[in-house]
Amino acid sequence: MPELRKDPVIGRWVIIATERAKRPNDFNLEPSDMDEIKPCPFCVGNENLTPPEIRSIRKEKTEADKPGWEVRVVPSRAPVLRIEGNLNKQPHGIYDMMRGVGAHEVIIETPEHINDFSSLEPGQIANVIRAYKERVTDLEGDKRFKYVLIFKNYKPAAGSTKIKHCRSQLIALPACPKSVKGELEGSRKYFEYKDRCVFCDIVSQELDDKKRLILDIDGFVAIAPFAGRFPFETWILPKKHSADFTSIEGDEITGLATILKELLLRMNKLLADPPYNYIIHTAPYRRTKAGYWSTIDQDYHWHIEIIPRLTRVAGFEWGTGFYINPTPPEEATKYLREVEVKV
Amino acid sequence: MPELRKDPVIGRWVIIATERAKRPNDFNLEPSDMDEIKPCPFCVGNENLTPPEIRSIRKEKTEADKPGWEVRVVPSRAPVLRIEGNLNKQPHGIYDMMRGVGAHEVIIETPEHINDFSSLEPGQIANVIRAYKERVTDLEGDKRFKYVLIFKNYKPAAGSTKIKHCRSQLIALPACPKSVKGELEGSRKYFEYKDRCVFCDIVSQELDDKKRLILDIDGFVAIAPFAGRFPFETWILPKKHSADFTSIEGDEITGLATILKELLLRMNKLLADPPYNYIIHTAPYRRTKAGYWSTIDQDYHWHIEIIPRLTRVAGFEWGTGFYINPTPPEEATKYLREVEVKV
Repeated sequence: MPELRKDPVIGRWVIIATERAKRPNDFNLEPSDMDEIKPCPFCVGNENLTPPEIRSIRKEKTEADKPGWEVRVVPSRAPVLRIEGNLNKQPHGIYDMMRGVGAHEVIIETPEHINDFSSLEPGQIANVIRAYKERVTDLEGDKRFKYVLIFKNYKPAAGSTKIKHCRSQLIALPACPKSVKGELEGSRKYFEYKDRCVFCDIVSQELDDKKRLILDIDGFVAIAPFAGRFPFETWILPKKHSADFTSIEGDEITGLATILKELLLRMNKLLADPPYNYIIHTAPYRRTKAGYWSTIDQDYHWHIEIIPRLTRVAGFEWGTGFYINPTPPEEATKYLREVEVKV
Repeated sequence: MPELRKDPVIGRWVIIATERAKRPNDFNLEPSDMDEIKPCPFCVGNENLTPPEIRSIRKEKTEADKPGWEVRVVPSRAPVLRIEGNLNKQPHGIYDMMRGVGAHEVIIETPEHINDFSSLEPGQIANVIRAYKERVTDLEGDKRFKYVLIFKNYKPAAGSTKIKHCRSQLIALPACPKSVKGELEGSRKYFEYKDRCVFCDIVSQELDDKKRLILDIDGFVAIAPFAGRFPFETWILPKKHSADFTSIEGDEITGLATILKELLLRMNKLLADPPYNYIIHTAPYRRTKAGYWSTIDQDYHWHIEIIPRLTRVAGFEWGTGFYINPTPPEEATKYLREVEVKV
C-alpha cells in the first residue's frame, strides 16, 4: 500500500510508493528506448488490455469494454494510490501519515491511435471535457476524497510513457495539495481586501491591456500569466466567475473545447510539437460546509494551466520554488498570436 | 534589465529575463552537444576569463585575479539579476513588479580542473564553506537584499553548463522566495504550538528512531526526510539549534565539510555519480527587527537539502507541487548507509 506522508515543516503531502520501490539501479538517466509499446492498450479493439472501464461515452446499444466508444475511462494499471480501504490516519512520532487511498484513472481520449490532442475534432475534445466533468462529479460521492487533479502529460519529456495514444489522467486525493491550498488562500486574502475575485480581476485587466491576451473565444480567454514561471506558460480562464470546473455545461463545454484546441494548435506549430503538461485547477470537494473553506465559491475561479516543457534542465527551481523565466509573457503572447494555424 | 514579478494569486516572485529573451527556436530539447568549453574560465591561470574577483581565499602575498587562490568568488557572466540600481517597486494594474536588482555570483571551489565536489579534500570543502559564509555575511550589508540562496547544480541534468569545473552559485534577492516563506511560517506555527523548534524535533526523532538516519558526524546529521519529494533526497542538519547558516564557526565548519563530503561520496558511489542540486536553507536577512519575522531565530533551523536528479521526467509535479516519490526514505537510508566508501 502506498503511503501519504506530510512534511512536518511546510505541511505538504507526498505520495511514497512502497510497493515495487525503485532501487539505486532502477534510475536510468540515459535517453531510454522510446519505442512504442505494441499493441496499444488504448486503441479500439484492445479493450481487454486495460482494466474494465469505469465510464465511457459510447454509441447507444454498444457494450462496456467493447468497441463503439468515443472516450473511455479506465483505472490506471500502475496506480499511485489505491482505491480500497480506509485512510487510517496516524501519527508517527512528530510526523503524520495515512494509507495511500485514492483513485488513479486514465481518460482515453480517442479510439484511434492518435497522439496529438490538438488534432482531434472540437466535438471530440468536448466529449473529453464531458468525461472529465462526469468523473470529477462522480468521485465527489466518495467521502474519503478532498481533491481531484486532472492533468495531461504529453510526450516522455512531460512525464508520459511509451504509449503514443492521447489520454489524460485523474488522481483523487484524500488531502488537498499544498499548491492548491496556496491558491485558495491567496484568492481568499484578495477577496477579503478587494471584495472581488482575483481571477476575475486578472481576466478584466488582460482584456483591457491586451499585451498578454492570446485568445478571446466563446466566453474563455487564453493568457500568458504576468508572473509566469515557464517560457510560453499559458492559462485558460472562463470569463464567467465559477470556482468549480464541473459547473460548465452546454455551450460552455464547446467553447472550452474550441479555445483549448486552438491554443494547443498554436503552441504545436510555434514550438514544433512540444512536450507539455496541462492541469485543471478547480475548487476542492465539500467546500460548501461551514468553516475555513466556506468562502471558496466566491473567492476562487477555476482555470487550466498549460506548461510546455521547453527547458530541458529545471536547475534548482525544483528545490526552491524560485523560478527564472527566460521568455517574457508579452513576447510569448506576440508569438502565439501571430502564428497561423488552420482550426 | 530583468524584472521581478509577483504572482497576484499566490504571491510568488518570479524573475523574468527581458534581455536576450528566448524565442521559440531557442529551445532545444534534443540532448545537446555537451563538449566542454575550453579553455576553462574557472582554472587557475585563466583568471582573466572571468570578471574581477569579489573575494578569494588565497595564499598570502598573492594578488587578486592572479594564481595563488584556493577558492575564488566572481560575478556571474550571465547574471539573472543585476547589481546596479534601485528596486523601483511599482504596480502594473493589479500586479506588482520591481526591477531585477540582485547579486549573482559564482563560487569557484578549486583551482584545479576537477568536476566532482566529493573528491575535494575535506580542508578544501571547509574553505568553500568559509567562502559561502563570508559572502552571505558581506551581502547582508546591502539593504536592498532580503534573502540569499546558495546552491550547486552538478552536471547538465541538474542545470549546470558545459564547464566541468566545481562551483556553486549565489543569488541575493530583494524578496524572500515563496518556498522559504512557507518553511518559515511552518516553523513558526510549530513553535507557537509546541514551544520547540520543528527541526530540532526532527533531529531528535531521527536520532532515536534511526530508520532514516544516514550519518551522524561531528555535530551534524544526514537524514532521508520522512516526506521526501525525490528518490534519495537527503538533508544535512546541525544538531545545535541555529536559524542562520552564517553562525557556524571553527570546528563546526570542519564538521559540515566532513559530513557533506561523506554523504556526497556515498551518493556518488551508490547512484553512479548522479547529477544533483544542493541548496542551503537559511534565515532571511534583517529578521532581528521587530515584527512578523522577529521570532525566526527561535523558530527556524538552517540546513542543506540535497536532491539527486534521478527521475528524468518530472511529470506534472512542476505545475502542481504534488510529488510522488518512488523510493521510500527508509530504503534510501539503508542503501546509503550500507554502501562502502573511502573517505
